[in-house]
Amino acid sequence: MDDFERLPTLTDVAKAAGVSPSTVSRYFRGLHIREPLRERVRAVATRLGYVPDPTAVALRSGRTNTIGVVLPQVANTFFSRAFQLMVEEARARGCAVLLLTHQEEQAAQEECLATLRRYKVDGVILTAVPGTTMDGVRKMLPRTPVVAFDRWFADEVDTVVLKNFEAARLATDHLLQHGHTQVACITVKPEIDSFKERTRGYTGAMVARGLRPQLVSADDYDELRDRVGEMLLALSEPGALLTLSNTATWSVLKACEDVGVASSSRALVGFDDFDYASLVQTPLTVIRQPVDDMVRRSVVAVFEQIEDASRRAAPKRISLDGELVCRASCGCA
Amino acid sequence: MDDFERLPTLTDVAKAAGVSPSTVSRYFRGLHIREPLRERVRAVATRLGYVPDPTAVALRSGRTNTIGVVLPQVANTFFSRAFQLMVEEARARGCAVLLLTHQEEQAAQEECLATLRRYKVDGVILTAVPGTTMDGVRKMLPRTPVVAFDRWFADEVDTVVLKNFEAARLATDHLLQHGHTQVACITVKPEIDSFKERTRGYTGAMVARGLRPQLVSADDYDELRDRVGEMLLALSEPGALLTLSNTATWSVLKACEDVGVASSSRALVGFDDFDYASLVQTPLTVIRQPVDDMVRRSVVAVFEQIEDASRRAAPKRISLDGELVCRASCGCA
Repeated sequence: MDDFERLPTLTDVAKAAGVSPSTVSRYFRGLHIREPLRERVRAVATRLGYVPDPTAVALRSGRTNTIGVVLPQVANTFFSRAFQLMVEEARARGCAVLLLTHQEEQAAQEECLATLRRYKVDGVILTAVPGTTMDGVRKMLPRTPVVAFDRWFADEVDTVVLKNFEAARLATDHLLQHGHTQVACITVKPEIDSFKERTRGYTGAMVARGLRPQLVSADDYDELRDRVGEMLLALSEPGALLTLSNTATWSVLKACEDVGVASSSRALVGFDDFDYASLVQTPLTVIRQPVDDMVRRSVVAVFEQIEDASRRAAPKRISLDGELVCRASCGCA
Repeated sequence: MDDFERLPTLTDVAKAAGVSPSTVSRYFRGLHIREPLRERVRAVATRLGYVPDPTAVALRSGRTNTIGVVLPQVANTFFSRAFQLMVEEARARGCAVLLLTHQEEQAAQEECLATLRRYKVDGVILTAVPGTTMDGVRKMLPRTPVVAFDRWFADEVDTVVLKNFEAARLATDHLLQHGHTQVACITVKPEIDSFKERTRGYTGAMVARGLRPQLVSADDYDELRDRVGEMLLALSEPGALLTLSNTATWSVLKACEDVGVASSSRALVGFDDFDYASLVQTPLTVIRQPVDDMVRRSVVAVFEQIEDASRRAAPKRISLDGELVCRASCGCA
């Protein structure tokens, strides 16, 4: 371990700054020390490259000032934006964020949780693989505070989600108000909890008007693209489409390209607003999720748990409203 | 630390599996043990939720099987795609990946490196903030293998980059071959090394034809969007645009929307291909970076360093070709 022999210690910093070791220690625990000592310690620590040993910090404070975030992936603008905001929110609280991704695989999720346990993170924000149970998570993280983001998986966990059912109903009703009677609902992995709720909302709106729901689903986005392409070429295909994620929206637009059908010939409402939604050939009508608010509530919830060491608070379920943003693809404008 | 009292130990696993502790230890070090013992250890470890203590593992093997990745951000499809591939490549080598982001801030980058040092990662892949020096990195990570991804910052570090100069020259020449004589080059943060190289390539192509280069730059994408909007409204504005990143391309398209100018009225070639490049109103001609290959080379380089404990290999600089993908925005088709 020669790496660490060369690293400066707290005592080195104290000597070089001309202060007591306990002053340096106070500085790194975020406690008050008066100027100009504070600035002197900061400058010397930076110059020497001193970083407190996390094990020592954890032993003193019980905290590593690190939050773990486990997401399916970041090649999806909803999650990449959410992660960016989590980093900002955690940083404002003096915490680093470690991101790990599970690609919707149970085994990969277990590895992520195992890594976060090894690294003794203070709390975890988790968008769980379908089928995740409380027992499964607690086996990997016996006591670490956990917040479920975007997907519910157990009532015992603080959960921050979109009002998925209501938002899907709103989107479907909007298409139906445009006079469509055939609306297909398009998604990957319908077993994901938020997609399940959205599907329920869609089905509810269809059935309420005596219409037959039609679900087009697949296990991944390439397969979905092919399946939508086939549907677009079928004679009796629906005139309107509801996509349950921004990546499903992308699959539909690529499928139109694949089979040479103008995407403008189909009414479309998609879940998730994103950077290019207004820039595609027919600007997209979408359900915008309150990502900022969802992230803020998740981060607040995880820090509340971290500070409530006795875990006396009852688990919270926070559901936030989606907003219908009308552009051209639904038939408006 | 009661969390850890409740966690199963290696001895618990050995007892429950009816094998010796050294067999369990061998299993978790990836060494050969014969079936059915191997399967028994795996099953019992999963059932009990046993995870080896990383400190103990690190003491034995000197490794934590964790790679740190430090990127500017992931709300940029180039980086989100790169990260996703890094996770896959590292996972194939039995390693977890921790992602941290610095948002182009030097202080945030130092915090990221400090976190990775605390967590004793085996290696780091870094897209560095402009102004990063070898000394600065070595102060935070005295000996950890480091690979520079997408941006050079010091000759002493293995570096994997696009042939930025050549790719920008290719893109500019293509616009000039379409007969344009006024081409503006649009970027944020021109001090970023890869943008510097691209600007050099653009300038070279312009000057070679006796044309005057015109650089439009800003410190962030909102400011860039406003600045491009002003340029589009100016009388003498250029007929063609070269954008140095996919986010600069987005700024241009949004600026066109802002000021009510059809983006199709300007020829455009942009750096970075991305999911929606073919789906915007005028499909975009782009320089496609070989992201997969860039990632693979970076991961190979970091593992080579990890395994070459004596660090005898000379630092490598790997530069890969960009590809011009012609769609409609340049004037082709």
